[in-house]
Amino acid sequence: MVYITRKAEFCASHRLHNPKLSDDRNRALYGPCNNPNGHGHNYTLEVTVRGIPDPQTGMVMNLQELNRLINREIIDRVDHKNLNIDVDFLWGVIPTAENIVMCFWQLLEKALPPFCALHEVRLWENEHNMAFYRGS
Amino acid sequence: MVYITRKAEFCASHRLHNPKLSDDRNRALYGPCNNPNGHGHNYTLEVTVRGIPDPQTGMVMNLQELNRLINREIIDRVDHKNLNIDVDFLWGVIPTAENIVMCFWQLLEKALPPFCALHEVRLWENEHNMAFYRGS
Amino acid sequence: MVYITRKAEFCASHRLHNPKLSDDRNRALYGPCNNPNGHGHNYTLEVTVRGIPDPQTGMVMNLQELNRLINREIIDRVDHKNLNIDVDFLWGVIPTAENIVMCFWQLLEKALPPFCALHEVRLWENEHNMAFYRGS
Amino acid sequence: MVYITRKAEFCASHRLHNPKLSDDRNRALYGPCNNPNGHGHNYTLEVTVRGIPDPQTGMVMNLQELNRLINREIIDRVDHKNLNIDVDFLWGVIPTAENIVMCFWQLLEKALPPFCALHEVRLWENEHNMAFYRGS
Amino acid sequence: MVYITRKAEFCASHRLHNPKLSDDRNRALYGPCNNPNGHGHNYTLEVTVRGIPDPQTGMVMNLQELNRLINREIIDRVDHKNLNIDVDFLWGVIPTAENIVMCFWQLLEKALPPFCALHEVRLWENEHNMAFYRGS
Amino acid sequence: MVYITRKAEFCASHRLHNPKLSDDRNRALYGPCNNPNGHGHNYTLEVTVRGIPDPQTGMVMNLQELNRLINREIIDRVDHKNLNIDVDFLWGVIPTAENIVMCFWQLLEKALPPFCALHEVRLWENEHNMAFYRGS
Repeated sequence: MVYITRKAEFCASHRLHNPKLSDDRNRALYGPCNNPNGHGHNYTLEVTVRGIPDPQTGMVMNLQELNRLINREIIDRVDHKNLNIDVDFLWGVIPTAENIVMCFWQLLEKALPPFCALHEVRLWENEHNMAFYRGS
Repeated sequence: MVYITRKAEFCASHRLHNPKLSDDRNRALYGPCNNPNGHGHNYTLEVTVRGIPDPQTGMVMNLQELNRLINREIIDRVDHKNLNIDVDFLWGVIPTAENIVMCFWQLLEKALPPFCALHEVRLWENEHNMAFYRGS
Repeated sequence: MVYITRKAEFCASHRLHNPKLSDDRNRALYGPCNNPNGHGHNYTLEVTVRGIPDPQTGMVMNLQELNRLINREIIDRVDHKNLNIDVDFLWGVIPTAENIVMCFWQLLEKALPPFCALHEVRLWENEHNMAFYRGS
Repeated sequence: MVYITRKAEFCASHRLHNPKLSDDRNRALYGPCNNPNGHGHNYTLEVTVRGIPDPQTGMVMNLQELNRLINREIIDRVDHKNLNIDVDFLWGVIPTAENIVMCFWQLLEKALPPFCALHEVRLWENEHNMAFYRGS
Repeated sequence: MVYITRKAEFCASHRLHNPKLSDDRNRALYGPCNNPNGHGHNYTLEVTVRGIPDPQTGMVMNLQELNRLINREIIDRVDHKNLNIDVDFLWGVIPTAENIVMCFWQLLEKALPPFCALHEVRLWENEHNMAFYRGS
Repeated sequence: MVYITRKAEFCASHRLHNPKLSDDRNRALYGPCNNPNGHGHNYTLEVTVRGIPDPQTGMVMNLQELNRLINREIIDRVDHKNLNIDVDFLWGVIPTAENIVMCFWQLLEKALPPFCALHEVRLWENEHNMAFYRGS
C-alpha cells in the first residue's frame, strides 16, 4: 500500500454563525470569526489517496487525474467564493474547518476510481489552524 | 543606514468592483475577484523601515514597538474584516493590493517616530500575488 | 472523529549535555549541540486534538481556546527562555526534541477538556529535525 | 514510543516512460512527464524512525547519525543525478514518486540500527505532489 | 509608482557545460551540475512590474493578464522541459540561473503593455540559490 | 549587471543586554530578549553579490564558491554558538539583527573576489523579524 497526496489552494470568504443561537452567544463562541460582514482565507487542501501502485504505470492513481478530480469536485466550486452563500453543498453548514473537511470527504470519496481509497482530507485555514478527517 | 522588516498576517474578505462601471465591465475586468458575495485571503504584510542603529541599543527601531505600531495602525483594523465594508480608511477605495498598500503607507508613515523612515510596504494576497510601494 | 491541529512558535536556547557522562562522551554524543554556552532554535509546535464536532458549533474544540491553552501551558513558559535553566518542568531533563515533546504531552493532556483527546504533539527544531509523540 | 523525522533535499531529473508500452500510450499516461529529454525536481525526502528514547541520551536515534545514514544510502546517490540513468538501485524502475519511495524504504530499512524501526518515508516532488510508504 | 509581483513555478532539467572547454575544466567549474545525464529543479520565477495604478481599476496591470503573459512567454515553453535541448530561446546558452534570467527578461520586456515597465526578474533554482536581473 | 543570492541557515543563542545601562533599563528596552539565561533562533542569512556574468561560465560568481566563502567566514563561526560569548568578531557588540548584519558585511566584503561586489546582506531572526544592510 502506497499513499499519494495532492495539495491544492483556494481563496474564499466565510462567517462563523449559528442562526439558532443569539447574537451574543455567537460572538462569544466565534469571536472575530463571527464578524457580520465576513472575512476570508487562502485555504490549503491536502487530499491523500492510498492503493497498490499499478506495476505497468508505477502509479497508485494518476496525479494529473487526481488533480482534475479535486478541481472539478472542490476547487471550481469554492475558489473565489463566499462559503456561506455561493456553495450549494455547504448550505446550512457552519463553515468551520471541521465541517468543511467532512463535506469535502463526501464529495471526494464518491468521485474516486474503485482501485484506490480516500485516506485523509486536510484543510489548512491559515499557517496555524488545520483540520483533517479520515472518514470515521 | 540599516533596514529592518517586520512581517505580520491578517485574514480578510474583499470584492473587486468599481460601482462607476457596468456589471459586465466589472466581470471582464476582475473575473472571479468580482464575485458579488466576495472571497478572501490570508494577507501577509511586510513593513520595512530604515535608519541608523542607535549605538546604545543597536536598534534602528525597537522591533516590538514596530510590531505594536503595525498592529494598532493596520492589523487591528483589517484582521477578520471585510475590506469593502468594515475598514474606514478603505471606504471608496477598490481594495486591490496596489490600492491597499498605498493606504497602508499613509497610515504607517504618519505613525513612525522621527528617527527612522518608512522604506517599503509589501502586501502578499497569496503565495503568487504581491504589491509593494516605496512612497513615490 | 475529526482532528484539529494548532501550530505555535517559540524561540529558546538549549544545550544537550548529560552530567552523568564525561565531557568527552558528551562531545562525541551531541557534537555541536554540546557547546558549553548553548545555542538556540525557533521551535515550531503542532498540537493535534481529536473529537466529534459539536453539532451546535461545528467545532471539535474552539481553536481560540486551544490556542490559549497552548500558550498558557507551553509557550508562555518556554518562549525566549533557556530550556536548561528557566523552565521548571524541564529541570533534570536533557532537552532533546524527543524529551521535550513527551513533557509537552503531559502538560497538554491534563489541560484539555474532557470532550476531546490529545492525538499528537509535534516539535520541529528547525527545517530538518522533528520529533512527535502520540502518548504511548 | 517516540517518532523522529529528518528532512533532506536533492535535485534530480527524470522521465516517466514504460518501454513496454507504445509512445502514444506513454504520452497519454504520463503527459508532460513523458517528455523525451526529461525534466527535473527539487525533491524533499522525509524519513521517520520510531523507537524508545535512550534514557542516557534522550534520543531515539542520534539525528546526526540518521542524517549521515540518509546521505550515504540515498542523497549521495541521487543528488544532481538523472534518476533513469545514473542510479543503480532504480534501473528498470519507472521513477514515479510511488516507486522511488518504495526503493528508498528498502535501502533505509536495511541500514537502520536494530534499536529503532523505520516508520515512514515521504517524498515531495514539488509543492503539490507527494507519496509516502509505511512498509506494507 | 507601485510595483506588482507575480510568482510562477516550473520544473525542468538542465546540465551546466561549456562545449568550448575540456571535460576536466567543465567538471572543475560546475562540479555535480556538470553531470552528463543532467539533473533538475523546481524553479520559482518572480516577475516584478512597475507603473501607476489606473484610477478606474486600481491596478498597475491586471494580475490575471500578467499571469497569462508569463505562462505564454515563459512557463509553457520551459515547464517539464530539458533546458539544454527543448527550449529554442536557450539554444547555445549555458543554463545558469544568471543566463536564464537575462533571457527571460528579453522575452518579458517585449511582451509587456506600454503603460507599465519590467522592474525585476528573479529565479530561484532551489531554496538556497537565486539570481535576479533589473535590465542593466 | 546580474545579482545572485545564496541563502544559508545557522542556529545560535543570544541575549540582548547593554552592560552600560541598568538592569531595569535593559529590561524595558529589550523585553523578553533580555532574559539573563538567553534564548535562541534559527537564523536565515541571505547574501547577495552583483557582477557581470563571465561569458565563458555564465556565472557572476561560482555559487559553490560563494557557499564555501559564506561557510568559512560566517556559518562555521556562528552555527551552534552563543553569539554573546563564542564569536570573536561579535565581542562587545550587542547582537541585535542590525549589528550582526553589519559585522557580517565587513567579513564578507573583504573575502569576495575582485570581479564581483557585495550588494546586500539579509538576516532573518525568525519568520517575522529581519534586518538588511547595503554597506552605507
